[in-house]
Amino acid sequence: MSSSTIYPTLRLRPKEDRRLRAGHLWIYSNEIDVAKTPLQDVAPGSVCTIEDAQGKAICLAHINPHTLLCGRLLSRNPHQIIDQHFYQERLLQALRMRERLFSAPFYRLVHGEGDGLPGLIIDRYEDTLILQPGSLGMEQDIGLITAALQALLRPSGILLKAGGAARRLEGLKERVEVLTGQVPERLSVWENDCLFEMDPYGGQKTGWFYDHRANRRRLMAHAAGRRVLDCFAYLGAFSIPLAKAGAQEVTAIDSSAPALKLLEENAQRNAVAPIRVIHDDAMDSLARLRDRGEQFDLIVLDPPALIKSKKDFKEGSIAYRRFNDLAMRLLAPGGILFTASCSHHLSRETLLNHIAFGAQRGDYAIIAEGTQDMDHPIHPAVPESSYLKGFYVHRREMIPEESA
Amino acid sequence: MSSSTIYPTLRLRPKEDRRLRAGHLWIYSNEIDVAKTPLQDVAPGSVCTIEDAQGKAICLAHINPHTLLCGRLLSRNPHQIIDQHFYQERLLQALRMRERLFSAPFYRLVHGEGDGLPGLIIDRYEDTLILQPGSLGMEQDIGLITAALQALLRPSGILLKAGGAARRLEGLKERVEVLTGQVPERLSVWENDCLFEMDPYGGQKTGWFYDHRANRRRLMAHAAGRRVLDCFAYLGAFSIPLAKAGAQEVTAIDSSAPALKLLEENAQRNAVAPIRVIHDDAMDSLARLRDRGEQFDLIVLDPPALIKSKKDFKEGSIAYRRFNDLAMRLLAPGGILFTASCSHHLSRETLLNHIAFGAQRGDYAIIAEGTQDMDHPIHPAVPESSYLKGFYVHRREMIPEESA
Repeated sequence: MSSSTIYPTLRLRPKEDRRLRAGHLWIYSNEIDVAKTPLQDVAPGSVCTIEDAQGKAICLAHINPHTLLCGRLLSRNPHQIIDQHFYQERLLQALRMRERLFSAPFYRLVHGEGDGLPGLIIDRYEDTLILQPGSLGMEQDIGLITAALQALLRPSGILLKAGGAARRLEGLKERVEVLTGQVPERLSVWENDCLFEMDPYGGQKTGWFYDHRANRRRLMAHAAGRRVLDCFAYLGAFSIPLAKAGAQEVTAIDSSAPALKLLEENAQRNAVAPIRVIHDDAMDSLARLRDRGEQFDLIVLDPPALIKSKKDFKEGSIAYRRFNDLAMRLLAPGGILFTASCSHHLSRETLLNHIAFGAQRGDYAIIAEGTQDMDHPIHPAVPESSYLKGFYVHRREMIPEESA
Repeated sequence: MSSSTIYPTLRLRPKEDRRLRAGHLWIYSNEIDVAKTPLQDVAPGSVCTIEDAQGKAICLAHINPHTLLCGRLLSRNPHQIIDQHFYQERLLQALRMRERLFSAPFYRLVHGEGDGLPGLIIDRYEDTLILQPGSLGMEQDIGLITAALQALLRPSGILLKAGGAARRLEGLKERVEVLTGQVPERLSVWENDCLFEMDPYGGQKTGWFYDHRANRRRLMAHAAGRRVLDCFAYLGAFSIPLAKAGAQEVTAIDSSAPALKLLEENAQRNAVAPIRVIHDDAMDSLARLRDRGEQFDLIVLDPPALIKSKKDFKEGSIAYRRFNDLAMRLLAPGGILFTASCSHHLSRETLLNHIAFGAQRGDYAIIAEGTQDMDHPIHPAVPESSYLKGFYVHRREMIPEESA
């Protein structure tokens, strides 16, 4: 246990240890001294000891020699063994934190870098866990992680649900696979005093998006008597609590028929008034609602990531601008638009700029900001782990001449 | 009413209308075509018609010819008359918005640019209003504003409480003056289910800081059984609700003896257990607590603006770094530090960077962000109106060998 030589070694080029020492967790392939320690000698997905240019071991990392982001730091103790015990300790820290912060077992249990487990996402749905490994290293350690989760939580089932752009960059295929126990066709989610069902196999990502829990809660305080429009409604995580909080009517748009079917079932399950569903493309629907002169008092605009990589920036950013402009036109005076972006590549400032563009035509103020909820921790030295930004935009009331 | 010539005209240089047309509200003196329309001909504090380089009137603005930021946009309608009616309409919009968002009449009623009234701050304490004009133009319009407020709200008293760096830039002196009615020595504040008293004459700014209301509320959910440290406690706006929410003990540091006396009275008023007060400089106190090995589960670090102007940046930023480093050392495993900055010149990214510095030594994650509350609206095109940033930093629990 005292030797750090059980893992192959990669040496950094001079000064390339600085970002790691300042707290970051990522290593790029051009930071490795490949003349001294060739990357291609490393087995893809394995753990390596990382040393600085002077040969001092500084950390352990998962290595994928075929990607630009080739290393993800696992431990700053070069003598650490990356075994079931290691994962169990990190998972227990993540679990303790959630148990402090949440009263019910429905949350993101592991949020990658923010929980010291870069490349790993785990969502918890009571007794069921859904894993999303996003790096080759985590993919290869699934056995250790599964064993650690069983020892800690004895879940009734663990599902591997892996896809997305990050995985493709790592050369990983889409996978959906029950790793242990049983995972039913439908799972329950308890959130904001509502009960939902979702589809872990066919749904988006792990089936549910916990990151907006606090934003949904915050909007509930402003729902009574309001006409609500939910633009990417999915399973009703915004629509249904807003209906329950007393909205006068709720209109939910989604392009997925199976999602809207679940949304309607979820509405029934929570005994809220029927929700008007529009099965269509969001951009088209918004334009049509605008052409018909409809107005809403509370609008939720939470699109999926419209910018998945840097090269999509221009096109995606234009789409955000158009969506926000349309939503601001549909907002009644006195109303609130909650507009969000989960695209890492769209900065808070750029989203603010799009709102300013829409605001040229009217009288709008930003009254609050909303980011990812507490089960999606940000690593202080990894700004990339902060991805969700949202603004609550208020449209001022128009004052008739005689009142003022 | 159809002519725009009742106000003197200032002409912008070519293309200098672009920022205004994009929504911003500020005009800098070097954007004025002083050859055609000399700034020194304008009476300080007066309203002017602003026209583009082609001579088209585009807006009205308050002008102070002696400052770099020489103009603040009042209306995009060049035919508007800036009279009591104008102020009454803007104030009524601001009031309607607060009445929708808050159930009790304790809030910032006007937040400058965010409410379309650049240079004006008004805080409401039930029947009493406290005005802080921050520009010469608003200072000169106090009579109109007071009349508009009386017509709208019939307050029992209006206090002018004006000071601070922004005023000094405008060549304005400190002023404390009852404008109308009566303003008692002590005013009540109802916030987060607690009742406070504050000193409108001698206290900081208008006497109270409403901007952290929602952050205080959010921390209350994590207070039960915790050891709390409140580093710039002032009148107990954090300390007392946290005590009421079940904190095991609360330690409050402040360098002002009158503030701490009011804090202790406020604690009695809300029947919470006595709060341990430390009357001292915060930096010294934190260092001493650290040297004694004390630990806290919930720490509030909300210093006054340590960076008041760009030239203070370096020194102020170092102070933020030291404060955060000390606070992170005092945080017990499993605890939460809420760290904030109200310095406009300290960006969210720089504060994050200071947290990353402190996090090098331990195991910290950012679990939430908190900005200014809804009665401090941000103008979408004026990023300067967004000044308050805060992070909730969690320290991970240490896991003993045998548990993991």
